[in-house]
Amino acid sequence: MKEYKFAEAVDLSQPLEQGMPIYPGNPVPDIESFATLDKDGVNLTRLTIGSHTGTHVDAPVHFIEGGLSVDRLPLGGFFVECVVVDVSQRERGTGVTASDLDKGPQARPGDVLAVFTGCSRDWGDKSLNSDYTYLAPDAADYLVEKRVKGVGIDFLSVEKYGAKVPVIHRKLLGKGIFIVESLNRNLEEFKDRRFLLVCLPIRLAGRDAAPCRAVGVPIEES
Amino acid sequence: MKEYKFAEAVDLSQPLEQGMPIYPGNPVPDIESFATLDKDGVNLTRLTIGSHTGTHVDAPVHFIEGGLSVDRLPLGGFFVECVVVDVSQRERGTGVTASDLDKGPQARPGDVLAVFTGCSRDWGDKSLNSDYTYLAPDAADYLVEKRVKGVGIDFLSVEKYGAKVPVIHRKLLGKGIFIVESLNRNLEEFKDRRFLLVCLPIRLAGRDAAPCRAVGVPIEES
Repeated sequence: MKEYKFAEAVDLSQPLEQGMPIYPGNPVPDIESFATLDKDGVNLTRLTIGSHTGTHVDAPVHFIEGGLSVDRLPLGGFFVECVVVDVSQRERGTGVTASDLDKGPQARPGDVLAVFTGCSRDWGDKSLNSDYTYLAPDAADYLVEKRVKGVGIDFLSVEKYGAKVPVIHRKLLGKGIFIVESLNRNLEEFKDRRFLLVCLPIRLAGRDAAPCRAVGVPIEES
Repeated sequence: MKEYKFAEAVDLSQPLEQGMPIYPGNPVPDIESFATLDKDGVNLTRLTIGSHTGTHVDAPVHFIEGGLSVDRLPLGGFFVECVVVDVSQRERGTGVTASDLDKGPQARPGDVLAVFTGCSRDWGDKSLNSDYTYLAPDAADYLVEKRVKGVGIDFLSVEKYGAKVPVIHRKLLGKGIFIVESLNRNLEEFKDRRFLLVCLPIRLAGRDAAPCRAVGVPIEES
């Protein structure tokens, strides 16, 4: 029997705030007060963001014509066991290979495999936004073979910055494997233990992706 | 021992889409394509919403000077057992009383009590946006006495429309009780059974509220 330690849940999400890192070219977040206690007797906020702003889930229709939108992905898939592979020793801005992944904890079919590149340690360093560590094509093939339900990463994208063809997204999304991007550096805490990843995207009807509050819930087996 | 049926999770969230109902006077949602597969080789979305758009969690600082913001509420509180009180027999646009609540399933300390007004059955009917069923002050006192962790409702607000003084919000938020509003009509499915409510708000730094994907997870006790 498994016990889920909800009270010990760890935040794996980046804060949504003015000036936060984004994939270059995506909508620039604009988050501001719409009403305040002082002036209006109530605090309200208006936010303009992209569907890929902050920690978020990519759905097939992001890159696949006629693919499922984010609101149609099965909810049960966002309560999912996860293993973390630490590739933070790899040189920044290079591609993680199948062989790198295979050295880490083994994902079971139906798991999420989350890649800890270490780039999240420097979230906010703008030079990294176009020079982060990404997945090489054979890593995507490996993940498909492993029959994972989803793939996570602790920076802006699984794809090499500026890739002309979105090879990695197409390989994964084309097989119905969802992608959760911009997990935060707390992911490292789980590198030695399987946990329950909860990453329910908000219900953005018919769209390519949506922000989520990703959290890691420790599991105790008895 | 409790088993959580994640694979049977029920969506309790409203879809975020153009033209959706909002509390009058809040920011008008604007959700549109920012890039498309046809033109740009990728689907991306830009969304402008309010912090209270769609299914969302209210934090104390919504109405309490110096109160906690939504990103600072403990994560464990958003994995919470919930009971539903069905008051859908009550005349629309009237205030739910303590006595109404006490006729339903009893909340334990630390639960969420969710009020099913039935207004969610007519989500999209604009006349209801300023004439929905709300909580009367003695219902808020009852919830405080019950020491619930949170309060849910299946329409735009727990507060009477246009209230000059936000009595209900102040009573609840002032005691650190969070509020989840605009749950959808699926809430009714749980009126006869305790379930796990998961309603993690996105991590909107320092703000009064944030959208969440609220889901109901059936519990099996063994």
